[in-house]
Amino acid sequence: MQHNIKKIGVMTSGGDAPGMNAAIRAVARACSYYNVKCVGYYRGYQGMIEGDSIELTARSVKNIVSEGGTILKSARSTAFRTKEGRKKAYDNLVEEGVDAMILIGGDGTFTGGMIFSKEFDIPVIGVPGTIDNDISGTKFTIGYDTALNTVVEAIDKIRDTASSHNRLFFVEVMGRDAGFIALNAGVGAGAEEILIPEEDLGLDRLLESLQRSRRSGKSSSIVVVSEGDKIGKNVFELAEYVTENLPDYEARVSVLGHMQRGGKPSCFDRVLASRLGVKAVELILDGQSNVMVGVSDNNLIVTNIEKAVKGKHTINKELLRISDILSV
Amino acid sequence: MQHNIKKIGVMTSGGDAPGMNAAIRAVARACSYYNVKCVGYYRGYQGMIEGDSIELTARSVKNIVSEGGTILKSARSTAFRTKEGRKKAYDNLVEEGVDAMILIGGDGTFTGGMIFSKEFDIPVIGVPGTIDNDISGTKFTIGYDTALNTVVEAIDKIRDTASSHNRLFFVEVMGRDAGFIALNAGVGAGAEEILIPEEDLGLDRLLESLQRSRRSGKSSSIVVVSEGDKIGKNVFELAEYVTENLPDYEARVSVLGHMQRGGKPSCFDRVLASRLGVKAVELILDGQSNVMVGVSDNNLIVTNIEKAVKGKHTINKELLRISDILSV
Amino acid sequence: MQHNIKKIGVMTSGGDAPGMNAAIRAVARACSYYNVKCVGYYRGYQGMIEGDSIELTARSVKNIVSEGGTILKSARSTAFRTKEGRKKAYDNLVEEGVDAMILIGGDGTFTGGMIFSKEFDIPVIGVPGTIDNDISGTKFTIGYDTALNTVVEAIDKIRDTASSHNRLFFVEVMGRDAGFIALNAGVGAGAEEILIPEEDLGLDRLLESLQRSRRSGKSSSIVVVSEGDKIGKNVFELAEYVTENLPDYEARVSVLGHMQRGGKPSCFDRVLASRLGVKAVELILDGQSNVMVGVSDNNLIVTNIEKAVKGKHTINKELLRISDILSV
Amino acid sequence: MQHNIKKIGVMTSGGDAPGMNAAIRAVARACSYYNVKCVGYYRGYQGMIEGDSIELTARSVKNIVSEGGTILKSARSTAFRTKEGRKKAYDNLVEEGVDAMILIGGDGTFTGGMIFSKEFDIPVIGVPGTIDNDISGTKFTIGYDTALNTVVEAIDKIRDTASSHNRLFFVEVMGRDAGFIALNAGVGAGAEEILIPEEDLGLDRLLESLQRSRRSGKSSSIVVVSEGDKIGKNVFELAEYVTENLPDYEARVSVLGHMQRGGKPSCFDRVLASRLGVKAVELILDGQSNVMVGVSDNNLIVTNIEKAVKGKHTINKELLRISDILSV
Repeated sequence: MQHNIKKIGVMTSGGDAPGMNAAIRAVARACSYYNVKCVGYYRGYQGMIEGDSIELTARSVKNIVSEGGTILKSARSTAFRTKEGRKKAYDNLVEEGVDAMILIGGDGTFTGGMIFSKEFDIPVIGVPGTIDNDISGTKFTIGYDTALNTVVEAIDKIRDTASSHNRLFFVEVMGRDAGFIALNAGVGAGAEEILIPEEDLGLDRLLESLQRSRRSGKSSSIVVVSEGDKIGKNVFELAEYVTENLPDYEARVSVLGHMQRGGKPSCFDRVLASRLGVKAVELILDGQSNVMVGVSDNNLIVTNIEKAVKGKHTINKELLRISDILSV
Repeated sequence: MQHNIKKIGVMTSGGDAPGMNAAIRAVARACSYYNVKCVGYYRGYQGMIEGDSIELTARSVKNIVSEGGTILKSARSTAFRTKEGRKKAYDNLVEEGVDAMILIGGDGTFTGGMIFSKEFDIPVIGVPGTIDNDISGTKFTIGYDTALNTVVEAIDKIRDTASSHNRLFFVEVMGRDAGFIALNAGVGAGAEEILIPEEDLGLDRLLESLQRSRRSGKSSSIVVVSEGDKIGKNVFELAEYVTENLPDYEARVSVLGHMQRGGKPSCFDRVLASRLGVKAVELILDGQSNVMVGVSDNNLIVTNIEKAVKGKHTINKELLRISDILSV
Repeated sequence: MQHNIKKIGVMTSGGDAPGMNAAIRAVARACSYYNVKCVGYYRGYQGMIEGDSIELTARSVKNIVSEGGTILKSARSTAFRTKEGRKKAYDNLVEEGVDAMILIGGDGTFTGGMIFSKEFDIPVIGVPGTIDNDISGTKFTIGYDTALNTVVEAIDKIRDTASSHNRLFFVEVMGRDAGFIALNAGVGAGAEEILIPEEDLGLDRLLESLQRSRRSGKSSSIVVVSEGDKIGKNVFELAEYVTENLPDYEARVSVLGHMQRGGKPSCFDRVLASRLGVKAVELILDGQSNVMVGVSDNNLIVTNIEKAVKGKHTINKELLRISDILSV
Repeated sequence: MQHNIKKIGVMTSGGDAPGMNAAIRAVARACSYYNVKCVGYYRGYQGMIEGDSIELTARSVKNIVSEGGTILKSARSTAFRTKEGRKKAYDNLVEEGVDAMILIGGDGTFTGGMIFSKEFDIPVIGVPGTIDNDISGTKFTIGYDTALNTVVEAIDKIRDTASSHNRLFFVEVMGRDAGFIALNAGVGAGAEEILIPEEDLGLDRLLESLQRSRRSGKSSSIVVVSEGDKIGKNVFELAEYVTENLPDYEARVSVLGHMQRGGKPSCFDRVLASRLGVKAVELILDGQSNVMVGVSDNNLIVTNIEKAVKGKHTINKELLRISDILSV
C-alpha cells in the first residue's frame, strides 16, 4: 500500500464494552506490522482535547486481548460538542503528528467523529463497540456477545432459586432503546416472556401469558425486561402490578446493572474486535475516511459513517415468535 | 452400627443455597450405603404437612452434585408454626414410616425442627445450608463459599467498567443481618470500603475515606454494602448522599440480588455438603438427635441444635483491619 | 399448515456438543405448539434399532436449555450400516407411529439419514450439531461457539503460568480434519502461532516465527495446534523438536481433550439451537424432507442434505493473515 | 511497632499459583501503610542474584488482586544452590537497602530461604503459595482452592460428554506427591474412584470397584488420578489395562495439565493471600524471622520455617471413606 500515514490515533468512547481492549491491541499491532506509529488517547474525545495520550507499541498492548474494560478509558465529553473543543482536539492531533483517528464506540461517538472529520479534514474510521448491538452497518458490535453470555449466566443462577421457590422473576437487562440483549438472552435463558422496546406486548397480554404458563404446569417463570421497554411501568411497578393481579404469584425483581458491561470478552468478541481493528488500520492506509467497518455474514463490510449513524439496526422479530413457541 | 432406623427423611428449607443438592445426594447415598431407605420432602415443612414426598435412591440423585438450587425445593411454611400443622407433619412421617429427619437450612429451619422434635420425640439432625454463613456451631455453611465467588466475579466485572469510566460504585450484597459475604467478598474484590451491620462506620468517616482514596491517586472505587448494614440509608440514598457531598465523584449503584443464591456450587461447598450429609446419616444411625453437624478447623463437629440456634457466629473483625490496610 | 404428521422423532448422534439439549427442547416444544406428538430416541441410530425411546412433552424438557451433553445420549451404530439394522429401525418407527425424524449431528449422522430416508421413504431433517463447525450449508454448527469459549478460557489460564515462567506452550485443540476451532480460538487467545490442517506452515517457518517472536521481546508464547494438523509430528514430538532446535525455549504441552465437548452452552449456541430446532419441526409440517437447516448471515437457510454432506465448509484464511499481523 | 526496617523485598518462586498476585499486593500495600519501602524481585532467587527488581508502591499493584499468575514471575534457580549465588543475592539486597525478604512459594522456596537466612543473618518470612497444598504449618496454601474449582469445572464438562456416550474417563490432575487436589476435587466432582499417592488402591480393587459401579446402574464413570499416584501405571496405561480387563467399558483419558495453575483466584484464595501478605509484613516489623505464616481454623498461625519444611501436611483420609460411600 502506498500512503503517507505516519501516525494513527485510537480512542474508546461512550459506554465501555468487553473486547474494546482486543480492538486497541489489534490497532496497535497492525500499526506496528505496517510500520506506522500508534498513539492512544485517554477518555475519548476528552483526552484528545486535553492532549492526554500514550504511545502504543506492539509490546505495550500485550495480554490485554483477554481483559474487559478499556485501557484507554472512556468518557463523555461536553467540550467536544463545541467548536472550540474540537479545534483544541485538532490542534493536539497536529502537534502530536497524528494523521488519522480510529474511533471505537457507538452512535454518539461516530456522530462526533463525522462532524470533526468534516470540519478539519482528518480521516476517521469507526469501529462499532457497544454491548447494545444497536448500530447499523454491522450485524454484531464488539461486546454484545459477551454481554449476552453474562446475562444468560446470571439468569441461569436466578433460575436455580426461582425454581427452588416456585417464584416469578422480572429481570431487567441493558440495551438502551434496543431489545437485542433482552430478546437474545431471553431466548437463550429460556425466559417465559420477553419485553422489548420494539414491541409493546401490553399489560393484559402479559398477565394472560403468565396465567397460561402456570396453568401449563410451570412452577417458576422468568420475564426478561429490556431497560428501554415501553410497557409504561418500570420493572418494580411491573412486578407489583402482576402480583396484585395474579395473587398466587410470588414475584421478585433483579436489575442486572453494570456487570453487563464488564468481564473477559468471549472468543466471538475477541475475534471480531481483532478483525475490525486490523481492518480499520488498513482502511486508513488505503486512503479511506469517514467509514465504519462492520461484519455481515462473517465477512467484513465497510459503510459510510453517516449512513451507519442514521440507519437503524432492526431486531429479528422471528425470535419473538420462537420465544412464544418455546415458552409453550 | 446397631440401630433400628429403617427410613430417613430429608428436606431443604429457608433460602436455597448452592450445595444443597450435594447434601441431598450425600444423604441419599449414605442411606443406600447403610441399607436404610430415604425419602425427600418437597418445600420443607410444607411438604411434610402435605405429605408431598419422593423416594430417593442412590441412582435418583445422580449428577446433582454440581447443580445449584434444590431438587426438593424450598418454602416457608406458616402452617408449621401451628401445633395442628406440626401434628399433620408428624402423622405423615409415621404413615410413611420415617424414623428420623435431616433438616438442611438455617436458623429458622432449626428452630422449627427443635420444637417439632421435642413435641413428637422424633430425632432431627440439622445441616447448615445458607449463603449467609450466620450459623453458630460451624465455621462454614453450605453455599457461602459459592456466593462469595459469585459476588467477587460480579464485582470484577463492575470493576472493569468502573475503572474505564473513573466511577464510584456502591454494590449491595446479601447476608441478612450478618456481614460475612460483604466483608469477605469485599476484601476479595479489593473494595475500597466495606459497610457491614456489625460495625457502623458512620457517614462522615465514609466520606473521609473516599476522599483519601481519591487523593491517593485512585480513579475508581468500589464500596461493598451489606443488605443488613446499619448506616441509616439504603444503598441508593447512600450513593446520592456521597455525590452531593463529593461532587467530583460520579456514583452508580448495583444491587446484586438473587443471582447470589444460585449457580453451580464451588468445590469447597460440594465437599462440605458431602461430608455433612454423610455425617448426618451416621449420627442418626448412632442414635443421636437434636444436634447440628458443622465444620471447624476442617474437622466435623457436632453441636446441640438449641445452642446452634441461640449462639451467634461472629465475624472476624481482623478482616476489617486488613481491608483498611489494603485500601491504602 | 396443512399436514398429516402426528408424531415426530428426534435423536442425537455422533460426538456430543453443547446446545444439543437446547435443540431437543426446541423440537419438543415446537411439536407441542403445533399439536404433534414427539418421541426421543436414545443413543442415535442404535436406539432407533433397539426401539429405545421416550415420549418428549413440553414439560419433560424443562430446564435443559442450559445443560451440556445430550439427554438422549449419543453413540455410533455399526448395526445401522447394514440394511438389516436400518430395516429394524424403520419397523420400530412404524410401530411407534413416527412420521418423520429429526437428526441432530454431523456429517456421519446425515449420511446415514440420507440412505435411510431413500430406502424407506420417510422424511428426515438434519440439524447441524458438532463442535467442529465442519458442515457445509451453515455458517455455524451447534456447540462450536461454546467450544471456542472453553478453549479460550483454558488458554487464558495457561497463559497465566506461561507468562509467569517465560515458557512456550503447545496447546492441542479438537476439530477433526478442520481448523475452525484452532484458528478462531487461536486468534481469540492471542496465540503466537496456529497450526491447522488446511495450511501446512512447515517446521522451518515455525522455528523462524518463534525465534522472531522471542527477538521481538516476547517472553512467553502459545502455539495452538489443531488435532488434524498435517505438520507431520504430533504435539509432543513438535515440542521436543522445537526444544532441540531452540534450546533457550522451555516448552510444555497441553492437550485440552474432551472437556471441549462439554459445559453449559453459550447464549449464541442456545439461540442457534432453538431456532434450528423449531425450524426443523416446521419444515416437516411443511412437507419437506432430506434437507438440513442452517444459518447464514443470521438468517435460517435450508440445504439439500446430500449437498450438505458432500460440500465443504472452508475456513476463512483471512484469519491466518490476521493472526500473523497480531503476533507481530 | 518499634523497628528499624526501611525496606522489605518480596518474590515468588516455584510453580506459580493463583492468588500470588493478591499476596504481592497485600505485601506492597501493608508496606505502604506502615511507611516502609517495598521492592519486588523478578523470577524468585534468580532475580535476587541478578539484581532484577522493581519498586512496588500502593498504586503499582492496583487491580492485580484478581489476576492469575505472578507479576514478579517465577523460576527455579540453580545458581542459588551455590554459596556464590547466595552471596551475590545477599550483596544485591545490601546494595538495594533491603532489610528483610518475604518469600512466596513452597517447600523448595522455604528450604532455600532458611539456608540463606542463616548464612547472612537476614530475616525471611515464608508465605505458602502452591496449588498442591502440601505444606506443613497451614491448612490451606494460596492457589489450592482455585485449582480445586478449575479441576471440578473441567470434570463437570467431561462428565457431560462421558454421560452422553456412557464412557469411563480417567482424569489426571496435579498435586506432585500429595493427593489433596485429587481427593477433594474427586469428591467435589462426584468421581467414582480416586487414586492418590497416599493410598495404593491396587489394580484389582480398581477393577472390582468399576464393575460394581456398572452393575449398580451407572452408565458413565470418572476416575480421578493424582499425578503422583503409586499404582504403578501411568494414566494411559491404566486406561488400557482397564479396557483390556473390562471389555464393555469404553475408556478415555484426559490430562488436565497446566491450566490448573492459572486463572482468576477464587475469593477464598484472595482473602487468604491478603491476610497472609499483610501478616508477613507485620511479622517482620515485629522483629520475627525464619517463620512461615499459615492459617488454621480460620486463624493465622506462625510456624518455624524449618518445622514447616520438615513437617508433613497429611491428607484427611476421612474423605476417602466419604468418596466410597458417595460412589455407592
